[in-house]
Amino acid sequence: MTTATESPRRNGVDTATLFATIDAVKGQNEIAKFQFRASNTWVSGTHSRSTASDFFGAMQELRHKSDTVVEFDHPEVLVGTDHGPTPVEYLLHAIAACLTAGVANIAAARGVELTNVTSTVTGDIDLLGILGLSDGSVRNGYEQIRVAFSIEGDADEETLRGIVEQSRRRSAVYDVLVNATPVAIDVTCP
Amino acid sequence: MTTATESPRRNGVDTATLFATIDAVKGQNEIAKFQFRASNTWVSGTHSRSTASDFFGAMQELRHKSDTVVEFDHPEVLVGTDHGPTPVEYLLHAIAACLTAGVANIAAARGVELTNVTSTVTGDIDLLGILGLSDGSVRNGYEQIRVAFSIEGDADEETLRGIVEQSRRRSAVYDVLVNATPVAIDVTCP
Repeated sequence: MTTATESPRRNGVDTATLFATIDAVKGQNEIAKFQFRASNTWVSGTHSRSTASDFFGAMQELRHKSDTVVEFDHPEVLVGTDHGPTPVEYLLHAIAACLTAGVANIAAARGVELTNVTSTVTGDIDLLGILGLSDGSVRNGYEQIRVAFSIEGDADEETLRGIVEQSRRRSAVYDVLVNATPVAIDVTCP
Repeated sequence: MTTATESPRRNGVDTATLFATIDAVKGQNEIAKFQFRASNTWVSGTHSRSTASDFFGAMQELRHKSDTVVEFDHPEVLVGTDHGPTPVEYLLHAIAACLTAGVANIAAARGVELTNVTSTVTGDIDLLGILGLSDGSVRNGYEQIRVAFSIEGDADEETLRGIVEQSRRRSAVYDVLVNATPVAIDVTCP
């Protein structure tokens, strides 16, 4: 599918650049300070549209190669118009994608060639919380999130499991979900 | 743009159905138990693709009207191929969309006609954590998330601010971010 490249790649990861990047950050910690951003506009009812393109990192303003537009809505069973997934579903996509990116990087760094990585995520949520019908015993968010990984590559099972475990230890999304993250909300009424 | 409908709508919210749904759940709490799902497949490097269509809720298996496909990647500055936003950026989209859906519903329930709701979200993250270069003082996830709301409608500022505040109190994504959510990871090596 692709032509051979000069740089050594494993799992599609440019490991030389990966290690060089880590060395550069070691030398100048400021490079590691990033800010990601999103802008959302209400459309109608529970339907909103979110966009992103720019971010800050490596001591400069940066842009993604493409702009992203994400549609959010509630399904009809939750009195929405189903123009897109619910916001909480994106949390499930995010944890799967974050762990998977880490798995590919860590496997490459450890010299393991991956052949297949898939995951399914489920999140159980009791809407008594958000509907205000709980006596306080039901939270608003997910009661539990479960990630089922399937991983194949040229290493034994212990090594492959170790790669997933290391990805968990270094995952930004996992950390945000399992540990408290401060969220400040500021309101302007123009 | 749309033809007039029979049901009373405010902010695009079918308030009669909203209240009827809440009443139905009051009468049978089981209706409120939902499970959302996502499936992710690794593509190459930090690029993965996530899909979703079905979920469980209101005591039945349900499907969204459309399937969703979400591309994830890291930008080139983070040794990715930038085929999509990073997983952590979707957390910012999700909190904005969740709060906004709540704002529309709550405003409708309170008889407030909204004219404009926008928000921008920023998340500060120090990648020393995920790069394994911290002495333990830097976390993997966001240090702080900030949501800046702009809300306009036919109510005074105190009422509009109160709507955003009530949305925060009832937000599933806000709860997941600011409070700990258990994430279980299971690994299979076929």
